Amino acid sequence: MKVVAKTHHIYSFAPDLKPVLTVASGDEVVFETYDCYREQLNAPSRNQLFALQGLNPATGPVAVHGAVPGDTLKITVISIDLDEEGTMYLRPGAGILHKYVAEPEVKKLRVEGGKVHFNEKHALAIKPMIGVIGVSPKSGDITTYSPGTHGGNMDTKEIAEGAVVYLPVSVDGANLAIGDLHALMGDGEATVCGVEIGGRVRVKVELVKGQCFVTPVVEDREQVYVVASAATMDEACQFATEYMFEFLRERLEGTEANEIVCLMGISGDLRVSQMVNPLKTAKFAIPKAVFDVTFEKSRG
Amino acid sequence: MKVVAKTHHIYSFAPDLKPVLTVASGDEVVFETYDCYREQLNAPSRNQLFALQGLNPATGPVAVHGAVPGDTLKITVISIDLDEEGTMYLRPGAGILHKYVAEPEVKKLRVEGGKVHFNEKHALAIKPMIGVIGVSPKSGDITTYSPGTHGGNMDTKEIAEGAVVYLPVSVDGANLAIGDLHALMGDGEATVCGVEIGGRVRVKVELVKGQCFVTPVVEDREQVYVVASAATMDEACQFATEYMFEFLRERLEGTEANEIVCLMGISGDLRVSQMVNPLKTAKFAIPKAVFDVTFEKSRG
Repeated sequence: MKVVAKTHHIYSFAPDLKPVLTVASGDEVVFETYDCYREQLNAPSRNQLFALQGLNPATGPVAVHGAVPGDTLKITVISIDLDEEGTMYLRPGAGILHKYVAEPEVKKLRVEGGKVHFNEKHALAIKPMIGVIGVSPKSGDITTYSPGTHGGNMDTKEIAEGAVVYLPVSVDGANLAIGDLHALMGDGEATVCGVEIGGRVRVKVELVKGQCFVTPVVEDREQVYVVASAATMDEACQFATEYMFEFLRERLEGTEANEIVCLMGISGDLRVSQMVNPLKTAKFAIPKAVFDVTFEKSRG
Repeated sequence: MKVVAKTHHIYSFAPDLKPVLTVASGDEVVFETYDCYREQLNAPSRNQLFALQGLNPATGPVAVHGAVPGDTLKITVISIDLDEEGTMYLRPGAGILHKYVAEPEVKKLRVEGGKVHFNEKHALAIKPMIGVIGVSPKSGDITTYSPGTHGGNMDTKEIAEGAVVYLPVSVDGANLAIGDLHALMGDGEATVCGVEIGGRVRVKVELVKGQCFVTPVVEDREQVYVVASAATMDEACQFATEYMFEFLRERLEGTEANEIVCLMGISGDLRVSQMVNPLKTAKFAIPKAVFDVTFEKSRG
Protein backbone atom coordinates (compact mmCIF):
# COMPACT_ATOMS: atom_id res chain seq x y z
CA MET A 1 0.00 0.00 0.00
CA LYS A 2 1.28 3.45 -0.92
CA VAL A 3 1.17 5.84 2.02
CA VAL A 4 1.78 9.59 1.89
CA ALA A 5 3.01 10.91 5.25
CA LYS A 6 1.41 14.05 6.62
CA THR A 7 4.78 15.75 6.65
CA HIS A 8 4.27 16.03 2.89
CA HIS A 9 1.65 18.72 2.63
CA ILE A 10 0.68 21.90 0.85
CA TYR A 11 -1.03 25.14 1.88
CA SER A 12 -2.21 26.09 -1.57
CA PHE A 13 -3.33 24.40 -4.74
CA ALA A 14 -1.24 25.78 -7.60
CA PRO A 15 -0.49 24.67 -11.19
CA ASP A 16 3.20 23.88 -10.64
CA LEU A 17 3.10 21.68 -7.53
CA LYS A 18 5.80 19.02 -7.28
CA PRO A 19 4.18 15.64 -6.65
CA VAL A 20 5.53 13.56 -3.78
CA LEU A 21 4.29 10.37 -5.41
CA THR A 22 3.00 9.29 -8.82
CA VAL A 23 0.44 6.51 -9.04
CA ALA A 24 -1.31 4.62 -11.82
CA SER A 25 -5.05 4.79 -12.44
CA GLY A 26 -6.69 2.19 -10.21
CA ASP A 27 -4.11 2.41 -7.42
CA GLU A 28 -5.07 2.75 -3.81
CA VAL A 29 -3.29 5.35 -1.69
CA VAL A 30 -3.41 6.26 1.99
CA PHE A 31 -3.16 9.96 2.87
CA GLU A 32 -2.10 10.61 6.47
CA THR A 33 -3.43 13.99 7.51
CA TYR A 34 -2.91 16.60 10.22
CA ASP A 35 -5.91 18.33 11.71
CA CYS A 36 -6.64 21.75 10.19
CA TYR A 37 -4.60 23.44 12.94
CA ARG A 38 -1.54 21.29 12.07
CA GLU A 39 -1.65 19.96 15.63
CA GLN A 40 -0.64 23.32 17.10
CA LEU A 41 -3.53 23.28 19.58
CA ASN A 42 -2.52 20.61 22.04
CA ALA A 43 -4.50 21.44 25.15
CA PRO A 44 -7.81 23.00 26.11
CA SER A 45 -7.64 26.68 26.86
CA ARG A 46 -9.83 29.66 27.65
CA ASN A 47 -9.41 33.32 26.88
CA GLN A 48 -6.33 32.81 24.78
CA LEU A 49 -5.84 33.68 21.11
CA PHE A 50 -3.27 31.67 19.20
CA ALA A 51 -1.08 32.86 16.37
CA LEU A 52 -1.11 29.64 14.36
CA GLN A 53 1.31 28.97 11.56
CA GLY A 54 0.25 27.06 8.49
CA LEU A 55 -3.44 26.20 8.65
CA ASN A 56 -5.43 23.64 6.67
CA PRO A 57 -2.49 21.54 5.46
CA ALA A 58 -3.49 19.13 2.67
CA THR A 59 -1.39 16.00 2.33
CA GLY A 60 0.17 15.40 -1.09
CA PRO A 61 0.13 16.17 -3.87
CA VAL A 62 -0.08 12.82 -5.61
CA ALA A 63 0.18 12.77 -9.39
CA VAL A 64 -1.73 10.30 -11.53
CA HIS A 65 0.15 8.86 -14.47
CA GLY A 66 -1.32 9.94 -17.78
CA ALA A 67 -3.72 12.56 -16.42
CA VAL A 68 -3.97 15.56 -18.72
CA PRO A 69 -6.16 18.66 -18.73
CA GLY A 70 -9.67 17.74 -19.80
CA ASP A 71 -9.64 14.40 -17.99
CA THR A 72 -11.43 13.70 -14.75
CA LEU A 73 -10.07 12.26 -11.54
CA LYS A 74 -12.38 9.77 -9.86
CA ILE A 75 -11.56 9.34 -6.18
CA THR A 76 -13.36 6.65 -4.22
CA VAL A 77 -13.16 7.16 -0.46
CA ILE A 78 -12.58 3.65 0.87
CA SER A 79 -12.07 4.49 4.53
CA ILE A 80 -11.47 7.37 6.92
CA ASP A 81 -9.73 6.41 10.16
CA LEU A 82 -9.65 9.17 12.73
CA ASP A 83 -7.21 9.97 15.50
CA GLU A 84 -8.41 9.70 19.08
CA GLU A 85 -8.79 13.37 19.84
CA GLY A 86 -10.48 16.19 17.98
CA THR A 87 -10.24 19.95 18.42
CA MET A 88 -12.59 22.91 18.10
CA TYR A 89 -11.22 26.44 18.22
CA LEU A 90 -13.64 29.32 18.71
CA ARG A 91 -12.39 32.74 17.80
CA PRO A 92 -14.34 35.97 18.22
CA GLY A 93 -15.12 37.36 14.77
CA ALA A 94 -15.07 34.02 12.94
CA GLY A 95 -18.06 32.06 11.66
CA ILE A 96 -21.75 32.74 11.23
CA LEU A 97 -22.18 32.95 15.00
CA HIS A 98 -19.15 35.14 15.58
CA LYS A 99 -21.03 37.75 17.53
CA TYR A 100 -21.92 35.24 20.22
CA VAL A 101 -18.33 34.15 20.80
CA ALA A 102 -17.16 36.57 23.47
CA GLU A 103 -13.99 34.72 24.38
CA PRO A 104 -11.69 32.45 22.40
CA GLU A 105 -11.64 28.84 23.44
CA VAL A 106 -9.93 25.60 22.48
CA LYS A 107 -11.96 22.46 23.14
CA LYS A 108 -10.25 19.09 23.06
CA LEU A 109 -12.71 16.29 22.37
CA ARG A 110 -12.16 12.57 22.81
CA VAL A 111 -13.26 10.50 19.81
CA GLU A 112 -13.84 6.95 20.92
CA GLY A 113 -16.29 4.13 20.36
CA GLY A 114 -17.76 5.86 17.34
CA LYS A 115 -18.63 8.97 19.32
CA VAL A 116 -17.41 12.47 19.92
CA HIS A 117 -17.43 12.95 23.68
CA PHE A 118 -18.41 16.60 23.74
CA ASN A 119 -19.14 17.06 27.44
CA GLU A 120 -20.65 15.11 30.31
CA LYS A 121 -24.07 15.26 28.74
CA HIS A 122 -23.35 14.88 25.05
CA ALA A 123 -21.74 12.02 23.16
CA LEU A 124 -22.55 12.45 19.49
CA ALA A 125 -22.15 9.78 16.82
CA ILE A 126 -19.22 10.55 14.54
CA LYS A 127 -19.72 11.09 10.81
CA PRO A 128 -16.16 11.22 9.47
CA MET A 129 -15.76 13.46 6.42
CA ILE A 130 -13.09 15.10 4.30
CA GLY A 131 -13.00 18.92 4.40
CA VAL A 132 -10.27 19.47 1.79
CA ILE A 133 -9.89 17.39 -1.37
CA GLY A 134 -8.59 19.04 -4.50
CA VAL A 135 -6.27 19.14 -7.48
CA SER A 136 -4.07 21.77 -9.07
CA PRO A 137 -6.04 24.56 -10.77
CA LYS A 138 -5.14 25.75 -14.25
CA SER A 139 -3.83 29.02 -12.90
CA GLY A 140 -3.58 30.98 -9.69
CA ASP A 141 -2.51 29.90 -6.27
CA ILE A 142 -5.57 28.91 -4.24
CA THR A 143 -5.15 28.62 -0.48
CA THR A 144 -6.23 25.32 1.08
CA TYR A 145 -8.70 27.44 3.07
CA SER A 146 -10.78 28.08 -0.03
CA PRO A 147 -13.05 25.89 -2.13
CA GLY A 148 -13.37 26.27 -5.90
CA THR A 149 -13.88 24.43 -9.15
CA HIS A 150 -10.65 22.53 -8.37
CA GLY A 151 -12.25 21.15 -5.19
CA GLY A 152 -10.29 22.33 -2.15
CA ASN A 153 -11.95 23.31 1.12
CA MET A 154 -15.48 22.31 0.13
CA ASP A 155 -16.43 21.24 3.68
CA THR A 156 -19.14 19.02 2.24
CA LYS A 157 -20.16 16.36 4.69
CA GLU A 158 -21.26 13.90 2.01
CA ILE A 159 -17.54 13.43 1.18
CA ALA A 160 -17.45 10.50 3.56
CA GLU A 161 -16.64 6.78 3.46
CA GLY A 162 -18.08 5.21 0.33
CA ALA A 163 -18.44 8.47 -1.55
CA VAL A 164 -16.90 9.09 -4.94
CA VAL A 165 -15.49 12.53 -5.73
CA TYR A 166 -15.01 13.63 -9.33
CA LEU A 167 -12.58 16.49 -9.94
CA PRO A 168 -11.69 18.13 -13.25
CA VAL A 169 -8.03 17.72 -14.20
CA SER A 170 -6.37 21.04 -15.11
CA VAL A 171 -2.66 20.17 -15.18
CA ASP A 172 -0.61 17.15 -16.19
CA GLY A 173 -0.74 14.59 -13.37
CA ALA A 174 -3.73 16.30 -11.67
CA ASN A 175 -1.97 16.63 -8.27
CA LEU A 176 -4.39 15.32 -5.70
CA ALA A 177 -4.14 16.48 -2.06
CA ILE A 178 -6.38 15.66 0.90
CA GLY A 179 -6.71 17.08 4.42
CA ASP A 180 -8.94 18.78 7.01
CA LEU A 181 -10.85 15.78 8.32
CA HIS A 182 -13.85 16.26 10.58
CA ALA A 183 -15.25 13.71 13.00
CA LEU A 184 -18.53 15.63 12.81
CA MET A 185 -19.78 18.82 11.15
CA GLY A 186 -23.21 20.25 10.40
CA ASP A 187 -24.22 21.85 7.12
CA GLY A 188 -23.18 25.49 7.25
CA GLU A 189 -20.22 24.91 9.58
CA ALA A 190 -21.69 27.68 11.70
CA THR A 191 -18.88 27.54 14.28
CA VAL A 192 -16.21 27.93 11.55
CA CYS A 193 -14.89 24.50 12.49
CA GLY A 194 -16.17 20.98 12.78
CA VAL A 195 -14.61 18.50 15.17
CA GLU A 196 -11.19 18.99 13.54
CA ILE A 197 -9.01 15.91 13.59
CA GLY A 198 -6.12 14.11 11.95
CA GLY A 199 -6.32 10.63 10.50
CA ARG A 200 -5.74 8.33 7.57
CA VAL A 201 -7.81 8.42 4.40
CA ARG A 202 -7.64 5.47 2.05
CA VAL A 203 -8.76 6.20 -1.48
CA LYS A 204 -8.80 4.53 -4.86
CA VAL A 205 -7.69 6.92 -7.59
CA GLU A 206 -8.91 6.39 -11.13
CA LEU A 207 -8.49 8.40 -14.26
CA VAL A 208 -11.50 8.95 -16.49
CA LYS A 209 -10.34 10.14 -19.88
CA GLY A 210 -12.21 13.23 -21.04
CA GLN A 211 -15.69 14.11 -19.72
CA CYS A 212 -14.27 17.08 -17.87
CA PHE A 213 -16.77 19.43 -16.29
CA VAL A 214 -16.82 22.75 -14.54
CA THR A 215 -17.18 22.01 -10.81
CA PRO A 216 -16.83 18.96 -8.53
CA VAL A 217 -19.41 16.19 -8.54
CA VAL A 218 -19.87 13.79 -5.61
CA GLU A 219 -21.75 10.52 -5.55
CA ASP A 220 -22.87 8.40 -2.63
CA ARG A 221 -25.12 5.36 -2.43
CA GLU A 222 -28.33 7.31 -2.78
CA GLN A 223 -27.57 10.57 -4.50
CA VAL A 224 -25.44 12.56 -6.93
CA TYR A 225 -24.35 16.05 -5.83
CA VAL A 226 -23.02 19.00 -7.78
CA VAL A 227 -20.81 21.02 -5.43
CA ALA A 228 -20.39 24.69 -6.35
CA SER A 229 -18.64 27.60 -4.64
CA ALA A 230 -18.98 31.35 -5.13
CA ALA A 231 -18.61 34.66 -3.34
CA THR A 232 -22.20 34.58 -2.09
CA MET A 233 -24.52 31.72 -1.14
CA ASP A 234 -27.03 33.01 -3.70
CA GLU A 235 -24.46 32.64 -6.46
CA ALA A 236 -23.28 29.26 -5.19
CA CYS A 237 -26.89 28.01 -5.16
CA GLN A 238 -27.49 29.28 -8.68
CA PHE A 239 -24.26 27.71 -9.93
CA ALA A 240 -24.97 24.32 -8.32
CA THR A 241 -28.53 24.19 -9.63
CA GLU A 242 -27.67 25.26 -13.18
CA TYR A 243 -24.76 22.89 -13.41
CA MET A 244 -26.89 20.00 -12.18
CA PHE A 245 -29.28 20.73 -15.02
CA GLU A 246 -26.43 20.66 -17.54
CA PHE A 247 -24.96 17.52 -16.00
CA LEU A 248 -28.33 15.76 -16.33
CA ARG A 249 -29.10 17.04 -19.81
CA GLU A 250 -25.82 15.63 -21.09
CA ARG A 251 -26.66 12.24 -19.62
CA LEU A 252 -30.36 12.03 -20.44
CA GLU A 253 -30.42 12.17 -24.20
CA GLY A 254 -33.91 12.48 -25.57
CA THR A 255 -35.36 13.92 -22.37
CA GLU A 256 -36.93 17.34 -22.81
CA ALA A 257 -35.50 20.27 -20.88
CA ASN A 258 -38.84 21.02 -19.20
CA GLU A 259 -39.03 17.43 -17.97
CA ILE A 260 -35.61 17.72 -16.31
CA VAL A 261 -36.46 21.11 -14.82
CA CYS A 262 -39.66 19.72 -13.26
CA LEU A 263 -38.04 16.57 -11.89
CA MET A 264 -35.22 18.63 -10.40
CA GLY A 265 -37.70 20.97 -8.73
CA ILE A 266 -39.74 18.24 -7.10
CA SER A 267 -37.16 15.54 -6.35
CA GLY A 268 -33.85 17.39 -6.05
CA ASP A 269 -32.63 19.30 -3.02
CA LEU A 270 -30.58 22.46 -2.99
CA ARG A 271 -28.48 22.55 0.19
CA VAL A 272 -25.79 24.44 2.01
CA SER A 273 -22.32 22.93 2.53
CA GLN A 274 -20.56 25.80 4.26
CA MET A 275 -20.93 29.55 4.79
CA VAL A 276 -17.61 30.35 6.46
CA ASN A 277 -14.78 29.90 3.94
CA PRO A 278 -13.46 32.54 1.50
CA LEU A 279 -16.03 31.28 -1.00
CA LYS A 280 -19.35 29.79 0.08
CA THR A 281 -20.37 26.31 -1.02
CA ALA A 282 -23.77 24.93 -2.05
CA LYS A 283 -24.71 21.49 -3.32
CA PHE A 284 -27.57 20.29 -5.46
CA ALA A 285 -28.55 16.69 -4.69
CA ILE A 286 -30.56 14.42 -6.93
CA PRO A 287 -31.72 10.94 -5.98
CA LYS A 288 -30.34 8.16 -8.16
CA ALA A 289 -33.72 6.45 -7.93
CA VAL A 290 -35.19 9.28 -10.02
CA PHE A 291 -32.36 10.14 -12.34
CA ASP A 292 -30.64 6.97 -13.38
CA VAL A 293 -27.32 8.64 -14.03
CA THR A 294 -23.83 8.53 -12.66
CA PHE A 295 -20.91 10.69 -13.54
CA GLU A 296 -19.78 8.56 -16.42
CA LYS A 297 -21.92 9.25 -19.43
CA SER A 298 -21.86 5.76 -20.89
CA ARG A 299 -22.61 3.13 -18.31
CA GLY A 300 -21.88 0.13 -20.53
CA MET B 1 -65.66 19.97 12.98
CA LYS B 2 -65.21 23.55 11.82
CA VAL B 3 -64.45 23.76 8.12
CA VAL B 4 -63.38 26.87 6.23
CA ALA B 5 -64.33 26.65 2.56
CA LYS B 6 -61.72 27.61 -0.02
CA THR B 7 -64.02 30.28 -1.37
CA HIS B 8 -62.97 32.22 1.75
CA HIS B 9 -59.45 33.23 0.92
CA ILE B 10 -56.99 36.10 0.92
CA TYR B 11 -54.20 37.24 -1.39
CA SER B 12 -52.29 39.20 1.19
CA PHE B 13 -51.62 39.11 4.90
CA ALA B 14 -52.54 42.49 6.36
CA PRO B 15 -53.24 43.82 9.88
CA ASP B 16 -56.94 44.52 9.34
CA LEU B 17 -58.19 41.26 7.83
CA LYS B 18 -61.80 40.31 8.64
CA PRO B 19 -61.86 36.78 10.04
CA VAL B 20 -64.32 34.34 8.51
CA LEU B 21 -64.37 32.27 11.69
CA THR B 22 -63.27 32.68 15.30
CA VAL B 23 -62.13 29.62 17.24
CA ALA B 24 -61.02 28.91 20.79
CA SER B 25 -57.54 27.75 21.70
CA GLY B 26 -57.47 23.98 21.35
CA ASP B 27 -60.02 23.80 18.55
CA GLU B 28 -59.46 21.79 15.43
CA VAL B 29 -60.22 23.39 12.08
CA VAL B 30 -60.17 22.13 8.51
CA PHE B 31 -58.93 24.53 5.84
CA GLU B 32 -60.05 23.62 2.32
CA THR B 33 -57.53 25.04 -0.14
CA TYR B 34 -57.22 25.80 -3.85
CA ASP B 35 -54.00 25.05 -5.63
CA CYS B 36 -51.69 28.06 -6.00
CA TYR B 37 -53.14 28.78 -9.46
CA ARG B 38 -56.68 28.94 -8.01
CA GLU B 39 -57.60 26.08 -10.34
CA GLN B 40 -57.24 28.26 -13.44
CA LEU B 41 -54.99 25.72 -15.14
CA ASN B 42 -57.34 22.90 -16.01
CA ALA B 43 -55.63 21.07 -18.82
CA PRO B 44 -52.10 20.31 -19.99
CA SER B 45 -50.78 22.72 -22.57
CA ARG B 46 -47.62 23.58 -24.48
CA ASN B 47 -46.35 26.91 -25.75
CA GLN B 48 -49.04 28.92 -24.10
CA LEU B 49 -48.65 31.66 -21.49
CA PHE B 50 -51.58 32.24 -19.17
CA ALA B 51 -52.67 35.54 -17.65
CA LEU B 52 -53.76 34.17 -14.30
CA GLN B 53 -55.86 36.14 -11.88
CA GLY B 54 -55.36 35.82 -8.16
CA LEU B 55 -52.45 33.53 -7.38
CA ASN B 56 -51.51 31.77 -4.15
CA PRO B 57 -54.87 32.09 -2.39
CA ALA B 58 -54.68 31.31 1.33
CA THR B 59 -57.85 30.06 2.97
CA GLY B 60 -59.08 32.03 5.95
CA PRO B 61 -58.35 34.02 7.93
CA VAL B 62 -59.39 32.33 11.14
CA ALA B 63 -59.18 34.35 14.35
CA VAL B 64 -58.25 32.79 17.68
CA HIS B 65 -60.19 34.03 20.66
CA GLY B 66 -57.98 35.90 23.11
CA ALA B 67 -54.89 36.12 20.92
CA VAL B 68 -53.10 39.43 21.37
CA PRO B 69 -49.80 40.80 20.08
CA GLY B 70 -46.92 39.16 21.90
CA ASP B 71 -48.60 35.76 22.06
CA THR B 72 -47.69 32.81 19.90
CA LEU B 73 -49.94 30.67 17.75
CA LYS B 74 -49.14 26.97 17.89
CA ILE B 75 -50.53 25.12 14.89
CA THR B 76 -50.32 21.33 14.83
CA VAL B 77 -50.75 19.87 11.35
CA ILE B 78 -52.95 16.82 11.95
CA SER B 79 -53.51 15.80 8.35
CA ILE B 80 -53.10 16.96 4.77
CA ASP B 81 -55.48 15.34 2.29
CA LEU B 82 -54.69 16.10 -1.31
CA ASP B 83 -56.89 16.32 -4.37
CA GLU B 84 -56.38 13.77 -7.13
CA GLU B 85 -54.57 15.94 -9.61
CA GLY B 86 -51.61 18.27 -9.28
CA THR B 87 -50.27 20.94 -11.61
CA MET B 88 -46.86 22.30 -12.55
CA TYR B 89 -46.59 25.45 -14.66
CA LEU B 90 -43.26 26.30 -16.23
CA ARG B 91 -42.78 29.87 -17.37
CA PRO B 92 -39.70 31.21 -19.14
CA GLY B 93 -37.97 33.68 -16.82
CA ALA B 94 -39.21 32.16 -13.55
CA GLY B 95 -37.22 30.07 -11.10
CA ILE B 96 -33.57 29.21 -10.63
CA LEU B 97 -33.59 27.23 -13.87
CA HIS B 98 -35.42 29.87 -15.87
CA LYS B 99 -32.87 30.01 -18.63
CA TYR B 100 -33.49 26.38 -19.50
CA VAL B 101 -37.25 26.81 -19.89
CA ALA B 102 -37.58 27.75 -23.56
CA GLU B 103 -41.33 27.26 -23.78
CA PRO B 104 -44.11 27.58 -21.24
CA GLU B 105 -45.85 24.38 -20.27
CA VAL B 106 -48.64 23.21 -17.99
CA LYS B 107 -48.26 19.67 -16.69
CA LYS B 108 -51.23 17.92 -15.10
CA LEU B 109 -50.13 15.13 -12.78
CA ARG B 110 -52.28 12.39 -11.31
CA VAL B 111 -51.80 11.92 -7.56
CA GLU B 112 -52.95 8.45 -6.61
CA GLY B 113 -51.90 5.59 -4.38
CA GLY B 114 -49.45 7.80 -2.52
CA LYS B 115 -47.60 8.72 -5.69
CA VAL B 116 -47.26 11.55 -8.15
CA HIS B 117 -47.50 9.96 -11.59
CA PHE B 118 -45.09 12.23 -13.39
CA ASN B 119 -44.69 10.36 -16.66
CA GLU B 120 -44.55 6.79 -17.90
CA LYS B 121 -41.23 6.22 -16.21
CA HIS B 122 -41.56 8.15 -12.98
CA ALA B 123 -43.99 7.69 -10.12
CA LEU B 124 -42.61 9.55 -7.12
CA ALA B 125 -43.78 9.09 -3.53
CA ILE B 126 -45.79 12.10 -2.37
CA LYS B 127 -44.63 14.21 0.59
CA PRO B 128 -47.58 16.51 1.22
CA MET B 129 -46.60 19.91 2.61
CA ILE B 130 -48.03 23.36 3.22
CA GLY B 131 -46.48 26.18 1.17
CA VAL B 132 -48.35 29.11 2.76
CA ILE B 133 -49.19 29.35 6.46
CA GLY B 134 -49.24 32.74 8.10
CA VAL B 135 -50.90 35.33 10.29
CA SER B 136 -51.54 39.05 10.01
CA PRO B 137 -48.37 41.14 10.26
CA LYS B 138 -48.23 44.20 12.50
CA SER B 139 -48.16 46.50 9.51
CA GLY B 140 -47.94 46.41 5.75
CA ASP B 141 -49.78 44.30 3.26
CA ILE B 142 -47.74 41.23 2.43
CA THR B 143 -48.71 39.26 -0.67
CA THR B 144 -49.37 35.55 -0.16
CA TYR B 145 -46.48 35.04 -2.61
CA SER B 146 -43.96 36.21 -0.06
CA PRO B 147 -42.60 34.71 3.14
CA GLY B 148 -41.68 36.79 6.16
CA THR B 149 -41.62 36.87 9.93
CA HIS B 150 -45.41 36.44 9.85
CA GLY B 151 -44.97 33.09 8.05
CA GLY B 152 -46.61 33.24 4.64
CA ASN B 153 -45.11 31.58 1.57
CA MET B 154 -42.25 29.84 3.36
CA ASP B 155 -42.32 26.82 1.02
CA THR B 156 -40.66 24.74 3.72
CA LYS B 157 -41.20 21.06 3.15
CA GLU B 158 -40.95 20.14 6.82
CA ILE B 159 -44.36 21.81 7.30
CA ALA B 160 -46.00 18.45 6.77
CA GLU B 161 -48.29 16.09 8.66
CA GLY B 162 -47.29 15.89 12.31
CA ALA B 163 -45.33 19.15 12.27
CA VAL B 164 -46.02 22.00 14.64
CA VAL B 165 -45.70 25.57 13.36
CA TYR B 166 -45.22 28.45 15.80
CA LEU B 167 -46.09 31.93 14.54
CA PRO B 168 -45.75 35.22 16.39
CA VAL B 169 -49.10 36.97 16.93
CA SER B 170 -49.05 40.61 15.80
CA VAL B 171 -52.73 41.60 15.83
CA ASP B 172 -55.74 40.75 17.99
CA GLY B 173 -57.06 37.34 16.90
CA ALA B 174 -53.87 36.46 14.98
CA ASN B 175 -55.73 35.72 11.69
CA LEU B 176 -54.44 32.39 10.48
CA ALA B 177 -54.63 31.49 6.79
CA ILE B 178 -53.35 28.39 4.97
CA GLY B 179 -52.89 27.52 1.30
CA ASP B 180 -50.50 26.49 -1.49
CA LEU B 181 -50.24 22.76 -0.81
CA HIS B 182 -47.64 20.68 -2.60
CA ALA B 183 -47.79 16.95 -3.16
CA LEU B 184 -44.00 17.07 -3.59
CA MET B 185 -41.31 19.76 -3.66
CA GLY B 186 -37.53 19.74 -3.34
CA ASP B 187 -35.52 22.17 -1.23
CA GLY B 188 -34.90 25.25 -3.34
CA GLU B 189 -38.11 24.89 -5.40
CA ALA B 190 -35.87 25.23 -8.44
CA THR B 191 -38.76 25.01 -10.90
CA VAL B 192 -40.65 27.86 -9.13
CA CYS B 193 -43.41 25.38 -8.32
CA GLY B 194 -43.82 22.06 -6.61
CA VAL B 195 -46.58 19.66 -7.56
CA GLU B 196 -49.23 22.33 -6.85
CA ILE B 197 -52.50 20.94 -5.60
CA GLY B 198 -55.64 21.69 -3.63
CA GLY B 199 -56.76 19.76 -0.59
CA ARG B 200 -57.90 19.81 2.99
CA VAL B 201 -55.62 20.62 5.90
CA ARG B 202 -56.74 19.70 9.39
CA VAL B 203 -54.98 21.57 12.16
CA LYS B 204 -55.24 22.05 15.88
CA VAL B 205 -54.86 25.70 16.84
CA GLU B 206 -53.56 26.59 20.28
CA LEU B 207 -52.69 29.88 21.85
CA VAL B 208 -49.47 30.14 23.82
CA LYS B 209 -49.55 33.25 25.96
CA GLY B 210 -46.41 35.34 25.59
CA GLN B 211 -43.09 33.83 24.44
CA CYS B 212 -43.32 35.71 21.16
CA PHE B 213 -40.26 35.57 18.92
CA VAL B 214 -39.02 37.13 15.75
CA THR B 215 -39.48 34.50 13.02
CA PRO B 216 -41.40 31.22 12.61
CA VAL B 217 -40.27 28.05 14.36
CA VAL B 218 -41.27 24.58 13.18
CA GLU B 219 -40.99 21.32 15.05
CA ASP B 220 -41.27 17.75 13.80
CA ARG B 221 -40.59 14.44 15.46
CA GLU B 222 -36.81 14.68 15.15
CA GLN B 223 -35.90 18.32 14.86
CA VAL B 224 -36.65 21.96 15.62
CA TYR B 225 -36.26 24.46 12.77
CA VAL B 226 -35.94 28.21 12.73
CA VAL B 227 -37.34 29.46 9.42
CA ALA B 228 -36.03 32.83 8.26
CA SER B 229 -36.56 34.86 5.09
CA ALA B 230 -34.58 37.76 3.63
CA ALA B 231 -33.74 39.46 0.35
CA THR B 232 -30.71 37.21 -0.21
CA MET B 233 -29.99 33.61 0.74
CA ASP B 234 -26.87 34.82 2.55
CA GLU B 235 -28.98 37.05 4.78
CA ALA B 236 -31.64 34.39 5.29
CA CYS B 237 -28.94 31.91 6.35
CA GLN B 238 -27.41 34.41 8.77
CA PHE B 239 -30.83 35.26 10.23
CA ALA B 240 -31.85 31.61 10.70
CA THR B 241 -28.56 30.67 12.34
CA GLU B 242 -28.42 33.64 14.68
CA TYR B 243 -32.00 33.26 15.73
CA MET B 244 -31.50 29.56 16.43
CA PHE B 245 -28.67 30.54 18.78
CA GLU B 246 -30.93 33.01 20.59
CA PHE B 247 -33.79 30.51 20.71
CA LEU B 248 -31.49 27.94 22.31
CA ARG B 249 -29.81 30.34 24.70
CA GLU B 250 -33.19 31.37 26.10
CA ARG B 251 -34.07 27.74 26.72
CA LEU B 252 -30.76 26.41 27.99
CA GLU B 253 -30.18 28.44 31.09
CA GLY B 254 -26.75 27.89 32.55
CA THR B 255 -25.25 26.66 29.29
CA GLU B 256 -22.29 28.74 28.10
CA ALA B 257 -22.57 30.54 24.77
CA ASN B 258 -19.47 28.80 23.38
CA GLU B 259 -21.01 25.42 24.19
CA ILE B 260 -24.14 26.25 22.22
CA VAL B 261 -22.11 27.64 19.32
CA CYS B 262 -20.06 24.44 19.11
CA LEU B 263 -23.03 22.09 19.36
CA MET B 264 -24.86 24.06 16.67
CA GLY B 265 -21.83 23.88 14.39
CA ILE B 266 -21.40 20.14 14.64
CA SER B 267 -24.96 18.86 15.09
CA GLY B 268 -27.16 21.48 13.44
CA ASP B 269 -27.82 21.87 9.74
CA LEU B 270 -28.31 25.09 7.83
CA ARG B 271 -30.54 24.42 4.84
CA VAL B 272 -32.38 26.04 1.97
CA SER B 273 -36.17 26.14 1.88
CA GLN B 274 -36.73 28.13 -1.30
CA MET B 275 -34.86 30.49 -3.62
CA VAL B 276 -37.71 31.65 -5.87
CA ASN B 277 -40.12 33.82 -3.86
CA PRO B 278 -39.86 37.61 -3.31
CA LEU B 279 -37.77 36.85 -0.21
CA LYS B 280 -35.58 33.76 0.05
CA THR B 281 -36.03 31.30 2.90
CA ALA B 282 -33.44 29.36 4.92
CA LYS B 283 -33.92 27.04 7.89
CA PHE B 284 -31.60 26.03 10.67
CA ALA B 285 -32.38 22.53 11.99
CA ILE B 286 -31.26 21.14 15.31
CA PRO B 287 -31.84 17.57 16.44
CA LYS B 288 -33.98 17.21 19.54
CA ALA B 289 -31.72 14.38 20.65
CA VAL B 290 -28.93 16.92 21.15
CA PHE B 291 -30.81 19.97 22.33
CA ASP B 292 -33.57 18.88 24.63
CA VAL B 293 -35.74 21.88 23.90
CA THR B 294 -39.08 22.58 22.35
CA PHE B 295 -40.66 25.90 21.60
CA GLU B 296 -42.23 26.30 24.99
CA LYS B 297 -39.64 27.47 27.49
CA SER B 298 -41.00 25.71 30.52
CA ARG B 299 -41.75 22.09 29.84
CA GLY B 300 -43.15 21.23 33.25
